[in-house]
Amino acid sequence: MTSDEQRRREDELVDRVRASFDDTDDPRLREIMQSLTDHLHAFARDVRLTEAEWKAGIDFLTACGHITDERRQEFILLSDVLGLSMQTIAINNEAHGNATEATVFGPFFTESSPETEQGGDTAGGAQGQPCWVEGSVVDTAGQPVAGARIEVWQADDDGFYDVQYGDDRVAGRAHLFSADDGSFRFWCVTPTPYPIPHDGPVGRMLAAVGRSPMRAAHVHFMVSAPGHRTLVTHVFVRGDDRLDDDSVFGVKESLVRDFAEQPSGTATPDGRDLGERTWARTRFDIVLAPSDATA
Amino acid sequence: MTSDEQRRREDELVDRVRASFDDTDDPRLREIMQSLTDHLHAFARDVRLTEAEWKAGIDFLTACGHITDERRQEFILLSDVLGLSMQTIAINNEAHGNATEATVFGPFFTESSPETEQGGDTAGGAQGQPCWVEGSVVDTAGQPVAGARIEVWQADDDGFYDVQYGDDRVAGRAHLFSADDGSFRFWCVTPTPYPIPHDGPVGRMLAAVGRSPMRAAHVHFMVSAPGHRTLVTHVFVRGDDRLDDDSVFGVKESLVRDFAEQPSGTATPDGRDLGERTWARTRFDIVLAPSDATA
Repeated sequence: MTSDEQRRREDELVDRVRASFDDTDDPRLREIMQSLTDHLHAFARDVRLTEAEWKAGIDFLTACGHITDERRQEFILLSDVLGLSMQTIAINNEAHGNATEATVFGPFFTESSPETEQGGDTAGGAQGQPCWVEGSVVDTAGQPVAGARIEVWQADDDGFYDVQYGDDRVAGRAHLFSADDGSFRFWCVTPTPYPIPHDGPVGRMLAAVGRSPMRAAHVHFMVSAPGHRTLVTHVFVRGDDRLDDDSVFGVKESLVRDFAEQPSGTATPDGRDLGERTWARTRFDIVLAPSDATA
Repeated sequence: MTSDEQRRREDELVDRVRASFDDTDDPRLREIMQSLTDHLHAFARDVRLTEAEWKAGIDFLTACGHITDERRQEFILLSDVLGLSMQTIAINNEAHGNATEATVFGPFFTESSPETEQGGDTAGGAQGQPCWVEGSVVDTAGQPVAGARIEVWQADDDGFYDVQYGDDRVAGRAHLFSADDGSFRFWCVTPTPYPIPHDGPVGRMLAAVGRSPMRAAHVHFMVSAPGHRTLVTHVFVRGDDRLDDDSVFGVKESLVRDFAEQPSGTATPDGRDLGERTWARTRFDIVLAPSDATA
């Protein structure tokens, strides 16, 4: 049990650290630093952090810093596996009527994806089972949103995004625009589970706590249209074992869809000839919040 | 105002992240990760962290990682200026009767300091005004502790520790042992305020919040003896402007002492001939807690 005198000393230290930020010119920065002080000290006090554990924390952050470069961002991975990335998304995309829920952005978006037409193939040579996706973009009153920009990106069935190959390939990513009735349709590949990079300190932490580095299978969407809040989200695959165990906590039940397997020889919606290949299809309807929705 | 539905979504995410650590084999690691989850999410939710602020946090940690090497530890500096180092010290050195209070260890201790005799000079060529320090080591019942190992280290009056010069000098550090009556005495240099390294991200953060990087003037002590809790502390200088504004929150009122200025020509306690130089003297009595004191 902590004595009254001990508690007084610890409280007094927190007060002094908070007060050190009193003269911060920017009121928002002051608020953030004082709240960070409160919560960081509360953590250390709640667990009665030992000096050896403090040192282990310093060493962990140092290792995260040293593995981080232009191609690898261990601090984002750390934020992801602690659910902080997903919480930040939640805070900044407040629930608004039936608007589609947001999820994590991830590190693999690129600014200049190729444009494709309605019914085009976003795979661009990425390996995987062909998958037909169709849906519509509407507002929270159910009115179609025409001309919404729909960015789509995903890993191939080896679990890698094009940018991870280190050549200049562009595959598994494209953008298209919703039609006058809000509808859209395209080919991609059926998403499969893959691990986040786990050969660094975050991977070692996951191993120490018995957690998997695997992400549930998903296709990324970013949907934007004037007058609407930009939506960053995924569509997930019903039946995927990883739905309850996604390493970055990105799964929302409302984002899970049936990906119906189509036997070899089944006619495709647009007459595309897939020979003997099987394919899959899904429907993902998107509801955009107004741009003046909270957050 | 956050809606009930929004709050439910945010709570549910925290619960999921906590649950992800349920299978951790080491119960202490599980406790730490679950508490970290609670406090980290509470911080983001309390301040309603924006995505741009989250990104600024990631960039800040990345910069701390990239400046850190064998000679520079920006994460320890960060912990220091947030008061977390001092809080960890407080937690692990619980108040125990009249035992001398602990303070931060700092990054400049070295394992193999030279031994000096009673009344020896620990300066070893470090620049500064000569300063005589005397005191005694006793236990909480007031009994002398003989043979206690007293490690002393400090910056010179340019504000640098020997190890910061990058040559092989050993200066401003030594150890000695308390006499049979617990007493000790040595020469050092009168400590002066100096800044923590502030040319990196932590220094930029201090500037942004209007805080000084300066530390209050101090001499480091580490005192150890069988059967007693090892004490890591400083002695501070009464009248130092920085006592209320120490950048790492190391100052405890109980550790502040008079450093009495002695005019040129004043006789020294041990007959040392200082010529025309002024000198200073102080007394620092040390009370060690028993080794079975809490924490």
